[in-house]
Amino acid sequence: MTPPLDRTRRPFSIEEATAVLARTPSTLDALLRGLPVSWTNAHEGGETWSPFDVVGHLIHGEQTDWIPRAKIILVDGDARAFDRFDRLAQFGASAGRTLPDLLDEFATLRDANLRELGSLNLTDEDLGRSGRHPELGLVTLRQLLATWVAHDLGHIVQIARVLARQYSDEVGPWRAYLRIIEGPQG
Amino acid sequence: MTPPLDRTRRPFSIEEATAVLARTPSTLDALLRGLPVSWTNAHEGGETWSPFDVVGHLIHGEQTDWIPRAKIILVDGDARAFDRFDRLAQFGASAGRTLPDLLDEFATLRDANLRELGSLNLTDEDLGRSGRHPELGLVTLRQLLATWVAHDLGHIVQIARVLARQYSDEVGPWRAYLRIIEGPQG
Repeated sequence: MTPPLDRTRRPFSIEEATAVLARTPSTLDALLRGLPVSWTNAHEGGETWSPFDVVGHLIHGEQTDWIPRAKIILVDGDARAFDRFDRLAQFGASAGRTLPDLLDEFATLRDANLRELGSLNLTDEDLGRSGRHPELGLVTLRQLLATWVAHDLGHIVQIARVLARQYSDEVGPWRAYLRIIEGPQG
Repeated sequence: MTPPLDRTRRPFSIEEATAVLARTPSTLDALLRGLPVSWTNAHEGGETWSPFDVVGHLIHGEQTDWIPRAKIILVDGDARAFDRFDRLAQFGASAGRTLPDLLDEFATLRDANLRELGSLNLTDEDLGRSGRHPELGLVTLRQLLATWVAHDLGHIVQIARVLARQYSDEVGPWRAYLRIIEGPQG
């Protein structure tokens, strides 16, 4: 694999992907644990998600998405489509729970899943194996694992954006300089 | 101050703002420390910034922006415009340094600045005092401090987005689902 010619792309690497994935629970913990509930339950209006909702969604991904789909690829290849992912599962599963409890569960599940990932000792050939996404069609194990990484980071973005927008009015004229507030909602 | 009617806005509070600001160094530490340099030096092309550049920018803000401007408001009100902020200062100041070194410096500066903020014992009247921004004109101390919070969160967004986009190609067909990759650059 040739190194990238610039600083805008990295080739997928299990070691580097694992390094990023391992950091998400502690990043969310540092950002959210102990904040007032009014902040961790904040959202962007309508059906948008709060930080609390997002952590529940990440838990559901650990339980039903990434490693389970990796196993389907390794066992069945593209002969069996992935189960559909329930994007709204957390609204039931997180009801009545606290954010610290969800953060703990996410950290425990992620740690176990990364240990399982490591134990698979995936080869380049394994990473090139195909599975079948119910909507996207053929995808590779490499793409699934790269998406796991980007998905984590996308939800870190979402949580930080939801928090920042609580001060959309309080920042006054600085709003014009703050792309995080002026950008698209939701 | 009346409570907000929904979950999309919080009224500014020194205690809540301090709670968010205090979390930024540990959040960036959890996300970035120990990642390969190829990731922390990654960017979005052209003149866009890497995580390393952003941490240097946050350091410069601690040194020259937030608390120094708060003091100008408290001492001179709007009689003296703020000094202009150098958005490119980090390219000189961070040269030859390591990211762990910058993360340590940012944490130390932030801690000292939050202690100084606390020692000011700001009243609601203080928060309503005006200063003069060299481009935006009249702004209040409350707006300055709310902007400090949103600015931190905006740069957490930026760093997570830069990292995610390293896998823009590796995610394959999932790209269509990943707003963090499909959204605007830079």
